[in-house]
Amino acid sequence: MRVNRKMKMRRKMGSTQPGAGRKKRRASGREHFEIRTDLALESREGAEKAGTLHDGISFREWRTEQIAFTEVEVKNAQGEKALGKPSGIYLTLEAGGLGEKDERCHKDAADQLAAQIRRLAGMALGKKEGQGFPGVRILVVGLGNPYVTPDSLGPRVLGNLQVTRRIAEDGDRPVLSGIVPGVMAQTGMETAEILRGIIRETEPDLVIAIDALAARSLRRLGTTIQLTDTGIHPGSGVGNHRHGLTRETLGIPVLSIGVPTVVGAPAIALDTVAAVAAVLERESRTKGMGKWMEEMGAEEQYQLVREVLGPELGQLYVTPPDIDETVKRFSFTISEGIHQAFYGI
Amino acid sequence: MRVNRKMKMRRKMGSTQPGAGRKKRRASGREHFEIRTDLALESREGAEKAGTLHDGISFREWRTEQIAFTEVEVKNAQGEKALGKPSGIYLTLEAGGLGEKDERCHKDAADQLAAQIRRLAGMALGKKEGQGFPGVRILVVGLGNPYVTPDSLGPRVLGNLQVTRRIAEDGDRPVLSGIVPGVMAQTGMETAEILRGIIRETEPDLVIAIDALAARSLRRLGTTIQLTDTGIHPGSGVGNHRHGLTRETLGIPVLSIGVPTVVGAPAIALDTVAAVAAVLERESRTKGMGKWMEEMGAEEQYQLVREVLGPELGQLYVTPPDIDETVKRFSFTISEGIHQAFYGI
Amino acid sequence: MRVNRKMKMRRKMGSTQPGAGRKKRRASGREHFEIRTDLALESREGAEKAGTLHDGISFREWRTEQIAFTEVEVKNAQGEKALGKPSGIYLTLEAGGLGEKDERCHKDAADQLAAQIRRLAGMALGKKEGQGFPGVRILVVGLGNPYVTPDSLGPRVLGNLQVTRRIAEDGDRPVLSGIVPGVMAQTGMETAEILRGIIRETEPDLVIAIDALAARSLRRLGTTIQLTDTGIHPGSGVGNHRHGLTRETLGIPVLSIGVPTVVGAPAIALDTVAAVAAVLERESRTKGMGKWMEEMGAEEQYQLVREVLGPELGQLYVTPPDIDETVKRFSFTISEGIHQAFYGI
Amino acid sequence: MRVNRKMKMRRKMGSTQPGAGRKKRRASGREHFEIRTDLALESREGAEKAGTLHDGISFREWRTEQIAFTEVEVKNAQGEKALGKPSGIYLTLEAGGLGEKDERCHKDAADQLAAQIRRLAGMALGKKEGQGFPGVRILVVGLGNPYVTPDSLGPRVLGNLQVTRRIAEDGDRPVLSGIVPGVMAQTGMETAEILRGIIRETEPDLVIAIDALAARSLRRLGTTIQLTDTGIHPGSGVGNHRHGLTRETLGIPVLSIGVPTVVGAPAIALDTVAAVAAVLERESRTKGMGKWMEEMGAEEQYQLVREVLGPELGQLYVTPPDIDETVKRFSFTISEGIHQAFYGI
Repeated sequence: MRVNRKMKMRRKMGSTQPGAGRKKRRASGREHFEIRTDLALESREGAEKAGTLHDGISFREWRTEQIAFTEVEVKNAQGEKALGKPSGIYLTLEAGGLGEKDERCHKDAADQLAAQIRRLAGMALGKKEGQGFPGVRILVVGLGNPYVTPDSLGPRVLGNLQVTRRIAEDGDRPVLSGIVPGVMAQTGMETAEILRGIIRETEPDLVIAIDALAARSLRRLGTTIQLTDTGIHPGSGVGNHRHGLTRETLGIPVLSIGVPTVVGAPAIALDTVAAVAAVLERESRTKGMGKWMEEMGAEEQYQLVREVLGPELGQLYVTPPDIDETVKRFSFTISEGIHQAFYGI
Repeated sequence: MRVNRKMKMRRKMGSTQPGAGRKKRRASGREHFEIRTDLALESREGAEKAGTLHDGISFREWRTEQIAFTEVEVKNAQGEKALGKPSGIYLTLEAGGLGEKDERCHKDAADQLAAQIRRLAGMALGKKEGQGFPGVRILVVGLGNPYVTPDSLGPRVLGNLQVTRRIAEDGDRPVLSGIVPGVMAQTGMETAEILRGIIRETEPDLVIAIDALAARSLRRLGTTIQLTDTGIHPGSGVGNHRHGLTRETLGIPVLSIGVPTVVGAPAIALDTVAAVAAVLERESRTKGMGKWMEEMGAEEQYQLVREVLGPELGQLYVTPPDIDETVKRFSFTISEGIHQAFYGI
Repeated sequence: MRVNRKMKMRRKMGSTQPGAGRKKRRASGREHFEIRTDLALESREGAEKAGTLHDGISFREWRTEQIAFTEVEVKNAQGEKALGKPSGIYLTLEAGGLGEKDERCHKDAADQLAAQIRRLAGMALGKKEGQGFPGVRILVVGLGNPYVTPDSLGPRVLGNLQVTRRIAEDGDRPVLSGIVPGVMAQTGMETAEILRGIIRETEPDLVIAIDALAARSLRRLGTTIQLTDTGIHPGSGVGNHRHGLTRETLGIPVLSIGVPTVVGAPAIALDTVAAVAAVLERESRTKGMGKWMEEMGAEEQYQLVREVLGPELGQLYVTPPDIDETVKRFSFTISEGIHQAFYGI
Repeated sequence: MRVNRKMKMRRKMGSTQPGAGRKKRRASGREHFEIRTDLALESREGAEKAGTLHDGISFREWRTEQIAFTEVEVKNAQGEKALGKPSGIYLTLEAGGLGEKDERCHKDAADQLAAQIRRLAGMALGKKEGQGFPGVRILVVGLGNPYVTPDSLGPRVLGNLQVTRRIAEDGDRPVLSGIVPGVMAQTGMETAEILRGIIRETEPDLVIAIDALAARSLRRLGTTIQLTDTGIHPGSGVGNHRHGLTRETLGIPVLSIGVPTVVGAPAIALDTVAAVAAVLERESRTKGMGKWMEEMGAEEQYQLVREVLGPELGQLYVTPPDIDETVKRFSFTISEGIHQAFYGI
């Protein structure tokens, strides 16, 4: 997850069972409950609900016939605090048609993605508009586990990618290289270690990291692409990279492209608690109970659920049965977007 | 799912919002809420809780050093009604070590599985004990989608299987053939159609169907193997086969071997509701509320959750991030079990 | 191979070592030497060289900007004997661009293939031109071994195919179903057995079988698509199916679509012999030797080589290192051709 | 290829067509003909035939019940020149049973391989016998293209490997990490570039590189494992790595483990020429011609063949149709050998 909504504990339940929950959490070594979303769009929705949106964050929306764009820009420390995400641009492309076998919609998305990659890459590299990327070296990184379907977006995009380094370097065109670093359970190495080494040897100017994302809401699955200029943050993605991949850790600018393919199981549990609270609140007999539950705060609610479902709940994710088709479709859309951004085809 | 716990609706909420829930359900064409488990063991747990265990069901447990066996036998119509599963034997092998890279435990499980396959196959084919299976033709079927990790158990087992039909038929040994029929989204055909055709042409004596299962409880994931002599029932498995694969539909006995790799998302939601109810019940302020929620019944509870999470919730499943390793390990354990059952190696 | 060029033995060498070669062959249980090509185009080239082209065979060529078409029609028993292939139409589409990442050429090939599939399917089903295929049921079969790269064309095409049976049957459109039957080493069943069963159950009107082919000449690899209305003949394909898949064996018309991905190793050996013969013939010292070698005939030549290279030579094939890219590209071209033939998209 | 048999041109044909062959070769930019073998065993056979074995090479053979060991040691520059391979130890394990589903033979090979890995790793790291490898960090590299069956040995071994770095580092045991770097067509990077970077970052003590090999003789395919302490040399392997992976290029010792899965197509052609020569020599009419052909030398012979078969011949390889099974079996044998070498299991 790119943001940890580190919920403040409100100790409504504390009066009747003093400290119980807190002790248990400490024992398990977790101070803070985390509910994951890798989408800034969803962080912003959360922030708004909580009334925390500041002038440290700008926000704009526009659309084409098929695609709705939302751009969240985190501008300073104030914004970072409010949104729980590092400074930078977070752009989402959303369209219902992306969730289906709608080839025209995916074609349109690839075109729009290409334009936005050019814009963000241009900004990251200090290019003027229309200047192009002659001789610029781009390393595309396919994050995730190729053997776990909802985590295989990155490796699949790389499978479609036409690399050009060592093959067609003529100085006038951008140069693409690509790597599928694997996941730590397979390599015993942090992705950041592998990439730092490769970057030192091959000296690219820009990294584009592709990753499957965790969303907060089920309806984002397979309908959204997120493009950022902030890289990959610790704990994000389906495969949960420990270390971040950012300009700070890698030494060069990092764009990231992601598609939400899972929702964390805790999100389902918390939405259920919210549903229960709402029902309690609308019944005359139980009026007041719902409000009481809402005021519990997400952390208490989660601890409550975790007692029943077990501590492993936080590791589990929810995904639809046709996720293989979703990943396949988006892998083509994203690889086409990248080719088109740099080669215009 | 192999059982539909067709919950009776208890209309606790009806007093304040008469008929609302029911109308909505009818509109969506669903009469009954289904919470899935493919494990008879778990159905029995549910049945016991509900006080519905009859003499139509027998039950025994035993264990080896590493493995706990539970055998549920549904004996007649009374038992079928109580457990929501067709007559037959449902055997589970459970061991914590199966969830880990514990090779000795998996070796032991393969040995024990082989013995039980021999027993159930012998019973299904009317063999006396120790008689062996000379010339018996067995068709092993790998159900599921090879491209969706938690649904790929069947295809993976078939990848390990050594078929012998057309290669080493000498009359004195059993003869294995195998097929990966694919899923309906890929073939446009029901698995039952494909298998009926193949069975008519190749005339096996017995089918062994391998399938990934949905459990009710997270702690069964990757720790349990279920072996039955009742085949595959409609709606069961991760991939949700529409038609069953049974002696009735295929014309020959069908054993099934399965491993739970997912829990349906609704199960998580209902467990959350139960957790909330328990908390409400233990707080002095809210005492009575918890009982009220419990009495709502699973169907009301589910409808409540579904309003928030959306109707697609029923299609989603929960699975752990290391499911690829689990499926790989069990695919070897099961293929070894089958080889050993019929060839003693 | 779809044709066995059963070479008559000309006993040039017989004078000096009477019967030696023949005895050896008999001992190994092989009466006839077979040099494989699955391309009728190449059989015809062989036949012409041998002066055996009759009026039982018609032949026409035409071209579009990018693609050269060659249609060989075997019209009667005389033609079958001359060409060593059953009666029917054998159409090839050839283009250098198909061997490269030339997307326009592949797009053009998909369009042209679609038109030709419509023509041959129309003829096979007794349709008038322009009548379309409303309600016609088509079973697409992906032959070959998905785990052996040059043999994986069929399974890969099926991976791209959008089946419509059981999903969108409205009576006005053609209905596609699809199956990857696997290879006998994995299933223990002949492909013909599997398909006969499925056809009896699901009653399609037409089979389209996709298969990787063996060519005679290296330059055909990855540059040619062959479409026939004669099905798959015994011994053809990379995976060497024992039984044929034809109207006779399956009971319904069978189109086949194939791409050469390998050349049999014996072809390389014989081409080498020919090269040696040509060199000997042009040297003054050795003039006459070349002619002598040519007159040996393919069978003697092959036996000669087989003594050195071993009897397993016949099983081996030659393939280029980038065969994975070739198979991937053609799998899209063919699946698009099929979609377009029946759905116009 | 690990050795280039840079054949001296003997100009037998020159008298009648002066310089023709040479000019053609120069035009194509190739000075030297290369016939590939990655097996030192086969280089030695070639060297012996040519009478070039010196005291710069030592050689010993031994065997267990099932496995024949051959160890070639190249000791100095004289030996390097004679064998065309760099100084070091080249050990082969051969057994007919490795080519079949003979599990006992593969188990035995894994045991023996483990012992030899320990021996060579100990020598490379300056360990005394029996000292073990506490805290030694080993990077296992799976070379080759996972999507091309005979080139997929390395990636498949890595798929079976249990890495321990970052998971179970306790100082007393060796520490394994692993990487599948991909091939240059997919990454745009030399494998040496990728590995140098990773080695600088993660500081292993030893690399073990796994690669599919090209043999000279068909009968080596799938029956032989080669273990060396000399790394991977430029041009070797099925995938033809341009740069070598050696102590010189990577800065740490490199063991390599390989299994021959292909024979280069030129080898088949040259064996055919040899067969023709032998036949010519034994016929009274043509006596003298065979000797003449033999004296041509491999380079002339190859040029002769290349004219007919086309310049791409050098890129093609010959492989058996069941290569998927061979690669799968050896991938387990090698991963078990490595686990056992360092963890004794």
